[in-house]
Formats: sequence, structure tokens, C-alpha cells
Amino acid sequence: MYRSHTNGELRINNVNQEVTLCGWVQKTREMGAMTFVDLRDRYGITQLVFGEEHTKTAKTLGREDVIQITGKVIERESKNKNIPTGEIEISVTQLTVLNKSKTPPFTIEDNSDGGEELRMQYRYLDLRRTPLRRNLELRHRLSIEVRKYLDSLNFLEIETPYLIKSTPEGARDFVVPSRMNPGQFYALPQSPQTFKQLLMVSGYDRYYQIVRCFRDEDLRADRQPEFTQIDCEMAFVEQEDILNTFEALMVHLFQVSKGIEFDSFPRMSYADAMLNYGCDKPDIRFGMTFNYLTDLVKGKGFAIFDDAETVIAINAENCASFTRKQLDELTDYVKRPQVGAKGLIYLRCNEDGTFKSSVDKFYNEEDLKRWATQCNAKAGDLILVLSGETSTTQAQLSALRLHLGNQLGLRNPDIYAPLWVYDFPMFEKIKTPEGIIQWHSIHHPFTSPSEKFKNLTKEEILQIKDLNTFTAQAYDLVINGTEIGGGSIRIHDKKTQSIMFELLGFSEEEALAQFGFLMNAFEYGAPPHGGIALGFDRLCALFGGQETIRDFIAFPKNNSGRDVMIDAPATIDKKQLDELSIKVTI
Amino acid sequence: MYRSHTNGELRINNVNQEVTLCGWVQKTREMGAMTFVDLRDRYGITQLVFGEEHTKTAKTLGREDVIQITGKVIERESKNKNIPTGEIEISVTQLTVLNKSKTPPFTIEDNSDGGEELRMQYRYLDLRRTPLRRNLELRHRLSIEVRKYLDSLNFLEIETPYLIKSTPEGARDFVVPSRMNPGQFYALPQSPQTFKQLLMVSGYDRYYQIVRCFRDEDLRADRQPEFTQIDCEMAFVEQEDILNTFEALMVHLFQVSKGIEFDSFPRMSYADAMLNYGCDKPDIRFGMTFNYLTDLVKGKGFAIFDDAETVIAINAENCASFTRKQLDELTDYVKRPQVGAKGLIYLRCNEDGTFKSSVDKFYNEEDLKRWATQCNAKAGDLILVLSGETSTTQAQLSALRLHLGNQLGLRNPDIYAPLWVYDFPMFEKIKTPEGIIQWHSIHHPFTSPSEKFKNLTKEEILQIKDLNTFTAQAYDLVINGTEIGGGSIRIHDKKTQSIMFELLGFSEEEALAQFGFLMNAFEYGAPPHGGIALGFDRLCALFGGQETIRDFIAFPKNNSGRDVMIDAPATIDKKQLDELSIKVTI
Repeated sequence: MYRSHTNGELRINNVNQEVTLCGWVQKTREMGAMTFVDLRDRYGITQLVFGEEHTKTAKTLGREDVIQITGKVIERESKNKNIPTGEIEISVTQLTVLNKSKTPPFTIEDNSDGGEELRMQYRYLDLRRTPLRRNLELRHRLSIEVRKYLDSLNFLEIETPYLIKSTPEGARDFVVPSRMNPGQFYALPQSPQTFKQLLMVSGYDRYYQIVRCFRDEDLRADRQPEFTQIDCEMAFVEQEDILNTFEALMVHLFQVSKGIEFDSFPRMSYADAMLNYGCDKPDIRFGMTFNYLTDLVKGKGFAIFDDAETVIAINAENCASFTRKQLDELTDYVKRPQVGAKGLIYLRCNEDGTFKSSVDKFYNEEDLKRWATQCNAKAGDLILVLSGETSTTQAQLSALRLHLGNQLGLRNPDIYAPLWVYDFPMFEKIKTPEGIIQWHSIHHPFTSPSEKFKNLTKEEILQIKDLNTFTAQAYDLVINGTEIGGGSIRIHDKKTQSIMFELLGFSEEEALAQFGFLMNAFEYGAPPHGGIALGFDRLCALFGGQETIRDFIAFPKNNSGRDVMIDAPATIDKKQLDELSIKVTI
Repeated sequence: MYRSHTNGELRINNVNQEVTLCGWVQKTREMGAMTFVDLRDRYGITQLVFGEEHTKTAKTLGREDVIQITGKVIERESKNKNIPTGEIEISVTQLTVLNKSKTPPFTIEDNSDGGEELRMQYRYLDLRRTPLRRNLELRHRLSIEVRKYLDSLNFLEIETPYLIKSTPEGARDFVVPSRMNPGQFYALPQSPQTFKQLLMVSGYDRYYQIVRCFRDEDLRADRQPEFTQIDCEMAFVEQEDILNTFEALMVHLFQVSKGIEFDSFPRMSYADAMLNYGCDKPDIRFGMTFNYLTDLVKGKGFAIFDDAETVIAINAENCASFTRKQLDELTDYVKRPQVGAKGLIYLRCNEDGTFKSSVDKFYNEEDLKRWATQCNAKAGDLILVLSGETSTTQAQLSALRLHLGNQLGLRNPDIYAPLWVYDFPMFEKIKTPEGIIQWHSIHHPFTSPSEKFKNLTKEEILQIKDLNTFTAQAYDLVINGTEIGGGSIRIHDKKTQSIMFELLGFSEEEALAQFGFLMNAFEYGAPPHGGIALGFDRLCALFGGQETIRDFIAFPKNNSGRDVMIDAPATIDKKQLDELSIKVTI
């Protein structure tokens, strides 16, 4: 061992001990004949004092040099109350430079002077910074706690294969050419979905795995081509059992890692979430729920409202004093292409009880008062109104609500508001690039319909007018407006599964080719089962109080899917390509 | 919840309780008006009794049907002491068939009637069998214990990427075409070697990960293209620290999972292992070590020995009574192509003190007595001798030794004999297919030479005559003749690393292209570090008392790298290939 202690370990009661420490030179300071060095490792910082006999060498130490010292622990004269080792320092008697360091391209401080790209390129240096280290420590601690908790409930962690089969469902697969089976490819799993269902068929009634998943998507901000999920499945359970089990897991994690106690999480149907928040993952840290003014505002000659399918308002409490500029900024916000509204109507509920709106021309004081009543607005509040096609308007107003929530400081990252959203619809209709309307699973094609729809025939299902009312036993865990996970009760009988595949436009042949092994398995005694998957990167970021996942992953990729540190992906030898029986076509 | 209890849970003190159970029908037996059903789940088997009113339905139950029953726990008349629930049975009042099962293609019993291939195809049914379930439970338990133990020592589990960069070193990489970076490929890691070394540079001085690794090798028996390892690395340590740390981990695992106590593991240098066992992973559950007769046997006119570089013998104790047929079988064994000896010389030490050898023509009683003395043989023992080029003869005799060990029952899977082998050579010379002699890393190119060789120049190294004497700080953990893991102290300075790359025939350009990021990282304060990786599949098999890893992996691949259950790998759409800018060339 190169050291007797770490740099976070020594306290006042170690005074007079001889110790050996190792670490990186954080900084050096000269004071007369003495040199002070802050020595850093993963555990903390310890101050070293070099007296006259060593100060000459000490002066030559540069930032990030790796050294080993031996010396005596002494009490500091001026104590540093900010660090746990701040009461002592080491009077150095021996110094060995283990490795010199070039000057790092950015400072290894809590707030580095390095830009994003430079820090990604030198990720191994960026990871030395305390904030990143704390993130990875948090990640480790959470994974340990997840496993400990699920193990205590008799869940088995079972590893599933990474070299599997490509499926046409959902996002694009990464594929892996097989040298031993020329012309054939493995796929990397987007999730272990089918394997965990097979494990239920095998009788492993409580399965989990902290597992890497892969999706070859065009990367939006804060998506990674490889990500980690806590993947879980249970047999002989109903939706209620799954919600309770994983709510208890989350309560445990909040308790041990944040010291926050939760009794239980609120629940909201998908329909209510859309109605009141315009969004299936509402941030319920603040109210500002939707008020439908459609019937109130029609027939007063204001064409925009008259022509709209829906008119919805939110009440920004105590914001009547917003300036023209602030209102213009909000209007600009909703008009940006990402939101896509045509304009924003406001109604100020003045402190004196009068009203001032941007549509005073069409609505009198009485009309506006009715708006305010509908919105539960009081004097001093500001009502903001959008209109148009229902689902579009809901989405736009949801964006505005979150924007205002940020602006008004209602989204404090230290406050956690978990929520179960349930009763998701089974399907949505999407238009293919070729203009064909296709049914598409909201969750995935193994999701069970809600109890009351369970025994419908294909023909009965096709007669359902509003597809949103055809609900599934599917649920999401949402925290602070972020979807942390989701799952469903699965179909466990072949008949229902066949109907669903038909509705999704899989021919029997395609379904058999892709999922034949699962459908076959279902004929050999599949138990009722269901599960959930939680995004582990996202969960870590949330518990770390941050929005982006990148700094909770040791070696993330950039938005082009590149690892700029190792410079991957890269070209490979022709010999390698030949062995794999493939050719690059560009 | 579909059940109140599992099938392994009910005991005599539950009598009179009303319970609801779920599970699979293991078997049914009719006895007059009654029907008995063994109901199985992951936790055990519970006997159900259907009285007159339900026996009609009960009789229709087939093997592996999934049912739910409600009934009263009653005491059994004839108790079954072999199972924990054997004192009770359930008098069923309500039966629901949750899912019918087709007749499974093989029996779900401890010893199934299904062949290997059929069971692989229906792996989800094979996994229902108790022996496989126990294997996966053992695997889960070991992974929990590994994590718990390493966590208690401040090791952090840090996930490293699976989409990395192809390296020319060692086995073939699996590659993944990048759609977003056309013509470029990721590689799947053969191990997280470089990332764990980067983490040491980053200051995470105790890292581990239970991680999947990938190797596109022609699969020998009991190799898998994807396998799991316990990957570990430490900084500011010497070889001794690593051996002690992971010996303690293994001692812990033996204790908690097998109830076996170890104080410490014996250690043996690579040179001694080769000398005494002819093998770098000796099975030390039994002796039968090598005796070198070379000097004793020369010059007596027996040309085979006279021409041999080395003559080595083992002493099979108490085997003088081996029949002619048994000796012929041993001769056939060493002559098979996998072993490759030309013949086998024996010497019987008869009970009456006389000797009988297959070379009596050349050696008199006095000569043979000297052989026996050299081999520590006593009356009743059998000496077996091979000769030829030293390393070839060692390997052949090692094979014979293990073969005899098996034959004589000296390799009991319930006895565990762990061993550290250390001081491996740095390099071996191999001949390329083109006939060029190349230096090749025995461990890997980041391995540090032993202390005494650390500061040699390239020229000094090239002057070392016997490459085997140029040792590395590399070590293997061997248990019962199986390599369970290995590791090394790494090179942490760029200068030594450059010399090693040169010796391995990497041009500076190649080394930079492949490992540039690591060599760069070493310039920014790399600490002294080293590590180890343990084969987790192999470890599980060993603790499970079995030789093959396949049944310790939930969904393994066959010897052609195929998953016959899901039928992967498979062809993919032309559209998918086009998007990836690749073409199949066969």
C-alpha cells in the first residue's frame, strides 16, 4: 500500500501520528520559507506543510502532479471549518513524486474554466472534479440501495443477453454482424422486454436487472444511444401490486439518499393529466391547472375563439403586474416553432377589481369577470389563454405553464413531487411517411387492455370511436414533470396477443417471425404478469438535483453519438469487414 | 395479488388458515373420489386435495397448466419429510385455471427427458427445472455478496460504455455500424480495461463493475460470445494489496455461499507451476507432481530418452495393479491428437519390491530403483514417464495427470483448492501465419514488468535470453485447475508504455491511433494502479459444483454463437442495411 490514510480521513485526534498520504496536487502556496500544498484524492483534501529542508522540491510541484508524502499530523494554527480535515495539517518529512503531470487544459475545480467540448475530450480529468465525483458516488449508492431493497423482497437479478434479434418495433436497433453466421446480424436490445416476459413464463416471479439498453435514434438533447434502466417484472400480480411495490422502492430511495419521507404518491389518470395539465407527465410541484373557457367565450364576435375547438386558460397568481415586455416575452415564447401557438390572450385581474385584457374589444367587464371566476382568479392574478384544436392547445399551454413555472421559481429542484399516471390509452394513430394511417402502441405491443376491454374482439375494438378511451393497464412514474419510468400489465394469453398484433398491422407471418418464440412460450402456461422499467440515468440526475443526465454517466457520448475522448465510432480495417462479409457503401 | 402465499411457505402452524395459491401443475394423481395435485412455483411445491365436488375439473388439469386455488390448510395424513411443505396439504374449495398449457416437449423434472438441443430451443421451459433455478439463484446471491463486500471496502461500481472503439489487440471485436457516422463502427468491449485505467487516472481509486464482455472467437466448448466479469481496479497499491483484497473477497464468498472457511490461499510462481505441474493453472486438490528423470535415464541405449530434451515422470500412488488394458488406455489417451505424445513409458513398483517397466530391455533393477527414489515411489505405486521437448512434454504430462486425477476420483467438485499463480512472463513469441516471429503480451500490453525489470531500456530487454525469465507483475487466481481470474499491476508512465508497445510491434502511429487517449491520460498524473478481473460465469459454475457455464446463464448461445430459442442472429431488411451504409457481400 502506498499510503496509510486517505486525504479525507485525518482529524484532530490523529495529531502526532506519522502518516503516509498519496494524491494529486490541488494547489501550492508559498509563505516565506514554508510551502503549503493542498493534496487531493477521492476522499478529500489534506493540507501539507513543507519546511525549509523540503520547500525547494515542493516549490517545483505543479498542479495535478501525483505525489506520496510521509509526515507528522499537527494541529493547524488557522483552522478551516469548511473541510473535515481542516483542523490538522501534515508536517512533511519525505516527498516522492510518483508521476508528473502536464498542465491540465482546464482547472480541476468545482467550477471549471473548461468548455463543454474540451471537458468531454479530457473526460478523465473532468471526472476528477468534485461535482462529477459526487454524481458517480450517488449513482453507485442508488444502485446498491435498489439492489438491496429488491433483494429483500425476493427479486432475483437475472442477466439477459445483449446479442439478440432485431425487431421492427419502436426505435431503430443497433445491429452487430455475425462473422460465424455470414449475412446475419444480432441486434443490441432496446430493453430486455421479451426476455423478462419469458422469465415470467419460466416461473421467476420477481425479476429485476440494472441493465444497459441501446437505441439508435437521432439524438435529441440529453438522450444517449446507450442508457441504463432498472428493469423489473412480477408474476401473479395486478397493476395495484406493481404500483405499491415500486412506490415502496422509491420511498426507500428518497429516504436513504435524500432524507425525504413520503407516505404515498398521488395518482392521476392519463385523461385527467391531459385535461388539467395538457401533458401526460405533469409537474405537480405547482398548480396553475387548466380552465376550459370554450363555452364562455364563444359568440362574442372574436373569430379566433369562435373558430377554436377549445379555449383554455391558466391562472398565473399574483402576476397581474407583469409588464408589457414580460407579456410580449410570453407571447414570443408560445409563438416559437417548438411551441407553435399563433398568439396569446391575457387578462389582468387588477388589484382594484377591474379587468384589462388583450381582447377588451370583444368582451365586457361582465364577460371577463366570468373568465376570472372560471379560473378561480383573484385580484392581482394574470390569466393567460390559448385556443385552437384541443390536443394542440393543451400541449402549447402545457409548455407555457412550465415556462412560467420556471420563471416564477415554482420548480425548485430540492422539492420532489412524484406522481403515478395511469390508464394510458392502448393505441394512437400515426401517419406513415407514405400517408397511411397506422395503429401504434403507446406503451408496447404486449400491454394488456384495461379489465373492461379485455375480452373484446378485434371487430368490437375497431368500433371504439375515441381511441383515447380504449385504455390499457399501463402506468408511468412521473417526478417533477419528468417521466422516470413506465410499465404495464402484459397480455398473457396468445389470443389477445394475436388481436393486438393484427391491430398493429403485423401479418401473422411477421408476428411469428419476430415474436414467435414469445407467442409459443405463452402456450406453455404463462402466468398473469406485469412490470416496470425505471430510467436509471434520469433517476440519478433527478436525485442529484440536475436536469441533464450526461454528468451522471462516467463516459457519455455527445449529440452525434460520438465518444470524443476515445474518438469512437471509427473506421475499421478492410480485413475486419471481409471477415464479417460486409462492405461499406459510401 | 393473485395469491396469499407461495408454494414453499406453508407449514403445520398454518393449519386451518384459508389461503390462495398460484402455480404450475407439476402432477396429478387420482385416488378414488379424490384428486391430488402437486402445485409448483419458484418457492416449492404444495400438495392440493380436490374433494368430490371439484375432482371433475381437477382431473382435466394437465401438466404445466397455470392455476389459482383457494382452500384450507390441513394436516397431511402421510407426511412427506423431503419437502418443507410436506406436513400440510390444501383442501381446495375454489379453482381457477389462469392459463392452459400445451403438453411440454420434455418433462419439467430435476432430470429431464429432453435432449440438449430441445431444451435450448424451449429454454423458458428448461428454466423451470429446479437445478437451473438453483443455478440462477446462486448467481444472484453471489452478485449481491460481491457488491456488498466491495461496497463495504469503498469500491465504487462505475458503468463503462458498451459502444467503444475497435482495437487490434487480442481476440476479435464484435462491431456495430454507426448510422449517424456512416462508414464508421463502434466495437463492443472485450473488457473495460482502458476505461478502468482511465478511472484510476480520474482518481476513483477503488473501482469495480459486474459487466458484460464480448469476444468474437471461434467458440470452443463452453465459451460464450458474451460473458460476464467482475472487473476491478485499485490505485496506490502494489501487487500484494490486490492479492490480499481479492483473496478476502473470495474467502467471504466461500464462507457465505459454501460455508467453507479459508485462512489464506497458497501462492505459486508461474515457473514453479510449470516445473511441478506443467501447467499455469494447476489443480492442487491432488499431488502427483512432476519428477525430472532426464539425467538419470540417459546413456543406457534407449534412443527415445537419449534424444529427449527432458524426461518427466509422475507417480500414481497405489496404481501398480493397473491392468495391461488400463495402461493401454492411458497410452491411447496421451497419443490422441489433443495431447500428442508419441508413447508412454511405465514403471510398476511391485508390492514385493521388484520393478517392472516397459523399458526393461534398457534399464536394470538398480536403474529403475533410482527412478523410483527420484519419484518418491513406494511399493505398489505406478510411475508414468513422458519425454521430448520440455514445454511440450510438460503440457502432455499435465494432461495425463489431470486425466488420472479424474480417473482416480481425486478431483472432487465439493473440495475447493484455490491458488494464486504469480510472476507470469511479460511476453511470449508467436509465429504469425506469414511466418514472422512476433512478441505477444501474455497478459495485456498495459502490464507492468516486475520491479527488477522496471527501468530496463528496450535494448536491455531485447538482450534477455529466456523470455520466460522476464516476468511481469501479473497473477491469476486458479481454483481446482480452472483459471477464475487474472490481473496485473499496470504501467503508469508513458515511457515504459511506449517501450512495451514498441516490443509488441505497434508503430508509434498505431499505438497513438489505438491507445492515444490512454497514453495522453498518463501524462496528466496517472497514479500507480493495478487490478483484476474474475470470470463471473465460471465462478458461478464452480460454486455450483459444475464444469460447464452454460447452465449458469439464463439465455446462453450454442457453439455456433446462436440463440436457438429466439433464432438469432438473423438477416435484416435491406432498408436497415441501407440506413447503416453497409452491404452484405455473400
